[in-house]
Amino acid sequence: MKTIAHKSGGVATPRGYLASGLACGLKKSGKPDLALVYSEPVATGAAVFTTNKVKAAPVLVSQEHLAHQHKRAVIINSANANACVGPRGREDTLTIAHALADLLHTAPTELFLASTGVIGVPLPVPPILAALPALKENLTMDGGTAAARAIMTTDTFPKEYAVAYQYDGREIRIGGMAKGSGMIEPNMATMLAVLTTDAPIPQTVLQQTLRAVVNRTFNRITVDGDTSTNDSVFLLANGAAGGPLINEGPALAAFTEALEEVCRHLAWMIVKDGEGATKFISVKVTGARTEQEAETAARAVANSPLVKTAFYGEDANWGRILAAVGYAGIDFSPTAAQIRLGDLLVYDGTGLAFDEGVAKRILQEKEITTEINLNQGEAAATIWTCDLSPEYVRINGSYRS
Amino acid sequence: MKTIAHKSGGVATPRGYLASGLACGLKKSGKPDLALVYSEPVATGAAVFTTNKVKAAPVLVSQEHLAHQHKRAVIINSANANACVGPRGREDTLTIAHALADLLHTAPTELFLASTGVIGVPLPVPPILAALPALKENLTMDGGTAAARAIMTTDTFPKEYAVAYQYDGREIRIGGMAKGSGMIEPNMATMLAVLTTDAPIPQTVLQQTLRAVVNRTFNRITVDGDTSTNDSVFLLANGAAGGPLINEGPALAAFTEALEEVCRHLAWMIVKDGEGATKFISVKVTGARTEQEAETAARAVANSPLVKTAFYGEDANWGRILAAVGYAGIDFSPTAAQIRLGDLLVYDGTGLAFDEGVAKRILQEKEITTEINLNQGEAAATIWTCDLSPEYVRINGSYRS
Repeated sequence: MKTIAHKSGGVATPRGYLASGLACGLKKSGKPDLALVYSEPVATGAAVFTTNKVKAAPVLVSQEHLAHQHKRAVIINSANANACVGPRGREDTLTIAHALADLLHTAPTELFLASTGVIGVPLPVPPILAALPALKENLTMDGGTAAARAIMTTDTFPKEYAVAYQYDGREIRIGGMAKGSGMIEPNMATMLAVLTTDAPIPQTVLQQTLRAVVNRTFNRITVDGDTSTNDSVFLLANGAAGGPLINEGPALAAFTEALEEVCRHLAWMIVKDGEGATKFISVKVTGARTEQEAETAARAVANSPLVKTAFYGEDANWGRILAAVGYAGIDFSPTAAQIRLGDLLVYDGTGLAFDEGVAKRILQEKEITTEINLNQGEAAATIWTCDLSPEYVRINGSYRS
Repeated sequence: MKTIAHKSGGVATPRGYLASGLACGLKKSGKPDLALVYSEPVATGAAVFTTNKVKAAPVLVSQEHLAHQHKRAVIINSANANACVGPRGREDTLTIAHALADLLHTAPTELFLASTGVIGVPLPVPPILAALPALKENLTMDGGTAAARAIMTTDTFPKEYAVAYQYDGREIRIGGMAKGSGMIEPNMATMLAVLTTDAPIPQTVLQQTLRAVVNRTFNRITVDGDTSTNDSVFLLANGAAGGPLINEGPALAAFTEALEEVCRHLAWMIVKDGEGATKFISVKVTGARTEQEAETAARAVANSPLVKTAFYGEDANWGRILAAVGYAGIDFSPTAAQIRLGDLLVYDGTGLAFDEGVAKRILQEKEITTEINLNQGEAAATIWTCDLSPEYVRINGSYRS
């Protein structure tokens, strides 16, 4: 299987999908704030939602809709999270779902809905309802970028990616868009993604596959360790590529790999757009007994404010990395562990007298990998994060104001 | 029982204790870097250590010494953590223990030892050995502040506190000193405390009491959520106040309360000296089913970078507080919860239209309390923390350099 990345592609790259985005007036700036992704053939739909106990109204409604296997569209507004506003939150989401379903001649349950923006302020519904006809009218095969722009909040660039691969004589395409630029500001309900494919996949297989892929991609990035009220990832599969159902075996493995590539690239874009981020950091833990152990250790390092500020300061402070592994809650022997910054071994059971000049050159790069080898097994995991800069504090210190 | 705070008191305030501090040359600045606390009568000794899997050599040695119930002294050096330096770390700590024990005519096991400073650099032992005679010579009843100064690293002020209370005709005194100004920079191995009392208390009772009090005081503060390789809290009880052993009942309750007062004040000082901190924040969770549940929720809020930056920015961003409770891992109903900033109710199952001017005035204070009432039980817990400022990032970004 060869995957061909479509860097200019997005949610409307797979066959049978249309997308649109426009400004309905929720953003004071007048920038686009309403996006629609539509599948001409009926699709199967899968979704993964935030684990936060505090869930926005559209998350709760979309969770209910997930029980119905068919999907036709995903609608997303930015600028308002429709979260923590009492019972009217649900009513407002349902009002939009019914109006859009009428317009698209489908059932409300065939829609996924998401919102992202300020928490605790009622959603202005009339401007959204008024914009629905134009949103439908604007649907095109070239509308992916317009949709990706309309879901942005503090994002500094739209996030899109698509791949195509050949399998058993057919070309299958997978596309996607995402938003997020703090790995969560609850007020902006950061992480949203919409994925589309023209592969024919039954809903239960699609759901299992999406969950597994999200765990290895979107769930392996962290900017600040917070988890929002609105995080949602949606995946539609409309079968427009033709051919037999993808259920299991090599055909499913090929699809999973390609989906993971799309999700990984979208996840990386979110980290690179992290608030105030100046560096992209891969924290790789190897030599673990289990993947879970590796992930737990890598996450502790990636979430440590001390580690993140040291990367910002280009300081080869391996003691902070080791100490973060130490409080991660896993068992390991510090005297058996090794730490590398890039290729430079800086700790080998004890601190090494490494070349500070070499370390400085590694840390001056925009993309840095640090590897912690626990030397007690064969499992590995990587968490992707960014550094913590004074700019992060400035952005988040006066967000609501 | 009436507790009398001795704001000018410290480790040498209880009867029978002497302290000293001097500069032996570990700090390039020439500032004091070696401290000794000594009890003239043989004392019982208790201690609580870091839970980090990566433990500095003096932590491991002091853990062994804890198995012996008698203690005479605590020696602490700053500027070097004696951590992650291989087998020589232990040898260096033992060399110092043996030399000091000879000088004090006691057994090495009657000493507690601690180090705080840079990780991964071998401890310079000769200057410490050379300074031991002067350190002993300088021991006085007025030496508490000199000792408190000698254990400082990035601390901006020495941290001391003492209380005295009357119980059953005797006056019992408890004193203490602490250091720490990031709730952990592993390179500076932040949190250390030495507590002294002239109460007569058996070692097993002392140990249980210390652990319980530490859990409600030092373990309830957080600056950045990191946990160091060197954290240690020591408590000596030399019985110089006379009277019957304190074993249980009201006598032990009175002692515990007074010890908690000393530890709480020292813990508050650590938070107030938090790196770059501009505000002291009490995160109080009430209406929880268990104290553990309340503590878990309060800790999630207190550790959220988004919450901490919002306090820095004086932004009444209750959505971040609610979202942090949401991902804390406890069960609760967001629609039953209430959030207060100071006395101002800002969330009552739904966002309220509160007076932003009133909120701003509350958030402009140097000390702020936020209360989250889960309304599902009677238990409560408070975590104390500080805000997250750009200055924190500056201090920690170039720490090693």
